Amino acid sequence: MAITAGDAGLTCGILPAGARNAITDVPGVLVGHCTLSEGEVNTGVTAILPHGGDLFRRKVMAAAEIINGFGKTVGLVQVQELGTIETPILLTNTLSVGTCATALIREAIRRNPDIGRRTGTVNPVVGECNDGPLNDIQALAVTEDHALAALADAGDGAVAQGSVGAGTGMTCFGFKGGIGSASRRLSLGGADHHLGALVLANFGRAGDLVLPDGRRPDPRREAEAESGSVIIVLATDVPLEHRQLARVARRAGAGIARLGAFWGHGSGDITIAFDTANAVDHEEKAAFTTLRVLNETHIDLLFRAAAEATQEAVLNAMLAAPPFTGRAGQHRPSLADWLKSG
Amino acid sequence: MAITAGDAGLTCGILPAGARNAITDVPGVLVGHCTLSEGEVNTGVTAILPHGGDLFRRKVMAAAEIINGFGKTVGLVQVQELGTIETPILLTNTLSVGTCATALIREAIRRNPDIGRRTGTVNPVVGECNDGPLNDIQALAVTEDHALAALADAGDGAVAQGSVGAGTGMTCFGFKGGIGSASRRLSLGGADHHLGALVLANFGRAGDLVLPDGRRPDPRREAEAESGSVIIVLATDVPLEHRQLARVARRAGAGIARLGAFWGHGSGDITIAFDTANAVDHEEKAAFTTLRVLNETHIDLLFRAAAEATQEAVLNAMLAAPPFTGRAGQHRPSLADWLKSG
Amino acid sequence: MAITAGDAGLTCGILPAGARNAITDVPGVLVGHCTLSEGEVNTGVTAILPHGGDLFRRKVMAAAEIINGFGKTVGLVQVQELGTIETPILLTNTLSVGTCATALIREAIRRNPDIGRRTGTVNPVVGECNDGPLNDIQALAVTEDHALAALADAGDGAVAQGSVGAGTGMTCFGFKGGIGSASRRLSLGGADHHLGALVLANFGRAGDLVLPDGRRPDPRREAEAESGSVIIVLATDVPLEHRQLARVARRAGAGIARLGAFWGHGSGDITIAFDTANAVDHEEKAAFTTLRVLNETHIDLLFRAAAEATQEAVLNAMLAAPPFTGRAGQHRPSLADWLKSG
Amino acid sequence: MAITAGDAGLTCGILPAGARNAITDVPGVLVGHCTLSEGEVNTGVTAILPHGGDLFRRKVMAAAEIINGFGKTVGLVQVQELGTIETPILLTNTLSVGTCATALIREAIRRNPDIGRRTGTVNPVVGECNDGPLNDIQALAVTEDHALAALADAGDGAVAQGSVGAGTGMTCFGFKGGIGSASRRLSLGGADHHLGALVLANFGRAGDLVLPDGRRPDPRREAEAESGSVIIVLATDVPLEHRQLARVARRAGAGIARLGAFWGHGSGDITIAFDTANAVDHEEKAAFTTLRVLNETHIDLLFRAAAEATQEAVLNAMLAAPPFTGRAGQHRPSLADWLKSG
Repeated sequence: MAITAGDAGLTCGILPAGARNAITDVPGVLVGHCTLSEGEVNTGVTAILPHGGDLFRRKVMAAAEIINGFGKTVGLVQVQELGTIETPILLTNTLSVGTCATALIREAIRRNPDIGRRTGTVNPVVGECNDGPLNDIQALAVTEDHALAALADAGDGAVAQGSVGAGTGMTCFGFKGGIGSASRRLSLGGADHHLGALVLANFGRAGDLVLPDGRRPDPRREAEAESGSVIIVLATDVPLEHRQLARVARRAGAGIARLGAFWGHGSGDITIAFDTANAVDHEEKAAFTTLRVLNETHIDLLFRAAAEATQEAVLNAMLAAPPFTGRAGQHRPSLADWLKSG
Repeated sequence: MAITAGDAGLTCGILPAGARNAITDVPGVLVGHCTLSEGEVNTGVTAILPHGGDLFRRKVMAAAEIINGFGKTVGLVQVQELGTIETPILLTNTLSVGTCATALIREAIRRNPDIGRRTGTVNPVVGECNDGPLNDIQALAVTEDHALAALADAGDGAVAQGSVGAGTGMTCFGFKGGIGSASRRLSLGGADHHLGALVLANFGRAGDLVLPDGRRPDPRREAEAESGSVIIVLATDVPLEHRQLARVARRAGAGIARLGAFWGHGSGDITIAFDTANAVDHEEKAAFTTLRVLNETHIDLLFRAAAEATQEAVLNAMLAAPPFTGRAGQHRPSLADWLKSG
Repeated sequence: MAITAGDAGLTCGILPAGARNAITDVPGVLVGHCTLSEGEVNTGVTAILPHGGDLFRRKVMAAAEIINGFGKTVGLVQVQELGTIETPILLTNTLSVGTCATALIREAIRRNPDIGRRTGTVNPVVGECNDGPLNDIQALAVTEDHALAALADAGDGAVAQGSVGAGTGMTCFGFKGGIGSASRRLSLGGADHHLGALVLANFGRAGDLVLPDGRRPDPRREAEAESGSVIIVLATDVPLEHRQLARVARRAGAGIARLGAFWGHGSGDITIAFDTANAVDHEEKAAFTTLRVLNETHIDLLFRAAAEATQEAVLNAMLAAPPFTGRAGQHRPSLADWLKSG
Repeated sequence: MAITAGDAGLTCGILPAGARNAITDVPGVLVGHCTLSEGEVNTGVTAILPHGGDLFRRKVMAAAEIINGFGKTVGLVQVQELGTIETPILLTNTLSVGTCATALIREAIRRNPDIGRRTGTVNPVVGECNDGPLNDIQALAVTEDHALAALADAGDGAVAQGSVGAGTGMTCFGFKGGIGSASRRLSLGGADHHLGALVLANFGRAGDLVLPDGRRPDPRREAEAESGSVIIVLATDVPLEHRQLARVARRAGAGIARLGAFWGHGSGDITIAFDTANAVDHEEKAAFTTLRVLNETHIDLLFRAAAEATQEAVLNAMLAAPPFTGRAGQHRPSLADWLKSG
């Protein structure tokens, strides 16, 4: 079984983790994967569902933060304007965003035959990183069926991490990267809440990684430009206004920076954050509704949680991934092995 | 008495105006002026108070829209981050923003001796336009006392318009500009609400003005670059989330464009919008609060109102201002005279 | 042959048009269409190519302006960060953006087999409007071959307008909308330059349209919410820095507002602007390059041109489109007929 | 003499420092201070001059990044729109920004009597942090003369750091904060260039500081909210377009995050970046000019330098400041003492 940052003594910050130390600690959130790993093809799809119902009918409040915009994520223009997400979030490789967007559209129509007829259209959200070094990305191997398989796989338990789903062919600081997750438990208003992060970690120049204890793992690869990107999905059940959620989303960048990255030119570093506390009903009839929102003087707790959970989710992605040999014999060592030998 | 756009048959759009057709139709909003007009000095201060209480203790939700940022407005960084305004809004000439900001700071401290001691500091909000052509702006004639006088003058009745307060030395499309106001009455949820606009109108190239009926008033001045700026203050009692309010603020730009302007390079065109429906208590103790917010499917009503009220407020500013001769004999005709002769 | 706004006496502003009064007045720019109009399917693809060479190898400088972000345009995150476009721009219906993005990716790989191997990935740019009322948008009728057909159709002459390409099933202020174009000739530095606009016009509530002469065409349809969107593509050969180009892009919103729109809630109003004067070489080796840029004191000329050309392009779209009966017998009258009968 | 991060073995990153390891390593940049420290008043003004000439006549290209906008910095609206700075940058306490803005206005008029007469107005730039805990900020002790004194003190040699100028009353991670500076030498195009940072460091919760070697200095003060702010001024002589400079400015946030901060709610964290390579002449007559710009594939070097120099400048601020007892007996220990005893 894979070790985690906590197992390895690499505590990130001071807040306690949730029970699963994963984005699924936020009640209702589901994660699924479809992994393609055969021959030169090492890629896949990861699905994050804010809840298990019909997201088009019951949207979640959302925000995005473009840490560095050298990326091809789909759907953010509308997320930033309307502050909602109305499909599952899919993560995949850079050249498969169109296919995954179309899959989300077809699935939304299947469940909501009024789309584009008696109601508006639908805004699919798809994030991506470039797994070209380890995956034959030109093959455009991901199909709409793979996207649907990731959706069908979605569950609310422990999150499979490392080289799975969209993370299959990813690289991070010269080590094998992939999918990672972490969470923080927050006590607010006398009740427990959570903030969870799921990352598709594919960024960082070899040699730049700094562990929380100051060590600098060296994968003994030639240094190259920071490129490849990271998508950070943040979820919380703390009720927040859109503006507050956008502020929280921004703090994922601090978590990335603490690892030694500087949000490199070629790295599409993007946060998508959603909040499960205040749903938006597609058919809302009332002229006015009420939002429950956090007293902003407490928001530092969420800022801290976002930075910590993001930092730890990246470490968990690397620690969960065994050594990997991909396309054209390209090899990526495991951070877990470095720690054992260090 | 000054005529208004409505009197002159220059109806802007289709929504009904409020009882005063002014920003003071939004319950609680107060407006005051301090006018300096003697010799070469033709300038002043206009104060808009979202409510008559202590704004530092009971902040209003707010948003800003930078239509064109060639301007020196103070305080917007914090308004955009926190979504609140905690002082009155002052309008003045470009070079007096520092003095007006300091006046707001001193007044806030006077009322709240804990500022900078047992609580945080205070964020003054001051908008400006350049009245240099008609005012000896180098004289820096506005003092902190003038700012306080505008605050002391604040009332909730009819709004004095034209060449008063900050509007004293302003120019608009080659005609005399100044302070203008207008409002729209909105029926939502079975009750009347209002959106009001107050503008400091100092923009537009001579010859570019288009009236709602298609006529193009020509002040017979030599065409020159569009410069000078416009500050638009929008107020509403329709409950809105910050993101919604920012969307409404943006539509003031449509009102300006309908008049023939294109948001010229040299024109600092800025909207400051506030909402009186959901106050933010400086000492809020609860971890969570509730916001009442508009069902966004109704927001077009506010968008339309913002565009219409802004367009009409600019016309009202021009119509209320008699012909004016300022610094160095510079003359500005009145749009009202053009209409009579046209 | 279709009439234009100029033919109809609907002059927009004061600047002269280019020779074709179309985006193709900007040297090198090409436009192509693929039209699908059979049975319930009334949709298509329009391609705008900043130049006829390999855009991935020789990128153009670009900027985007989100006037109202209720839209699903693909590729803007990277355009805003890097300030370049590296594929043709495709326009299509809302649910076909994924397919068109994938078509652009495949075509870029075909021409550049190093993509995702020895160099980075590619960022496709696809804009959209919802033609659901007149088109069976659920059919997802647009294929990658249709996208390629629009690319293959690209030419630099007169631009086919009205119900062609992506414009086939569009509606504008209750009249038939579609593709429109216009241009302005600009004298700068002793030489002629151009700014051109191409719009996919599918916005505006019936009854809100205002013509430049103040008339208000009424299509005698029941008023409904402003929805449907407009994509504005601006091109220029005036050399501009990215920041300047973004400022110019913003002024398209003024052109839209002058027509009576207020950038409605449901309308994804987005400008994509590119500049052909300073290309960016994908393989640039020099550490430093030089940009030719406009002295910003002259930028009002481009602001004015952007507002005028956008306003006129929308009118041209409507005037070029005959009456149209689409899906489920939905009918849209022609603005040209209204003018004749008016 | 004060120790530096380098002396203390606290190397930040991998790039070499410039000769002075200060913002004055960028040729032409000048720094001056005016310190007020008597009784309960512990505050001041720091001036950064991009060059020693008339900045209104010869503007420098500039950009700003709002890391967290709980701050009252003046002048950024115009910096972000026009991409230039046309006055010196002043730093001071939060409630003195109005006074410092007015001082810059008067000084600009003194040197340029055409301001507000035959040419436009002037945009003063003033950054601030709240030194309320150690300074009687309500006294508004900073006068226009103090601002002028900081300007008069400006020199291009070593930068006085710690409790000087605006840094006199600042606190950082529970230790004494203040003014700090650092630089990085960059080899580009066969020549040496520099990026320098100067910070006004007044942020960070006691207990959150992480040193580059992983140690966590504890000032043994009760933990409190992160508040107080940090202003980061970045300077470079690497020629950059505005968009590129804005991207570099953003990376200062990574430097702050590496120290353990998460850009706290109450902390106004703002970067102002300027570039000395391409000046903008106020009287430019040519229609077109040329900009020298960096080939963006090399920009990671500047990103890395911005993160490293910012991180190190904060440490230098703390290390240069001896223990300090301010208003009401409030005491701040020195990080230098912690290191000696640690």
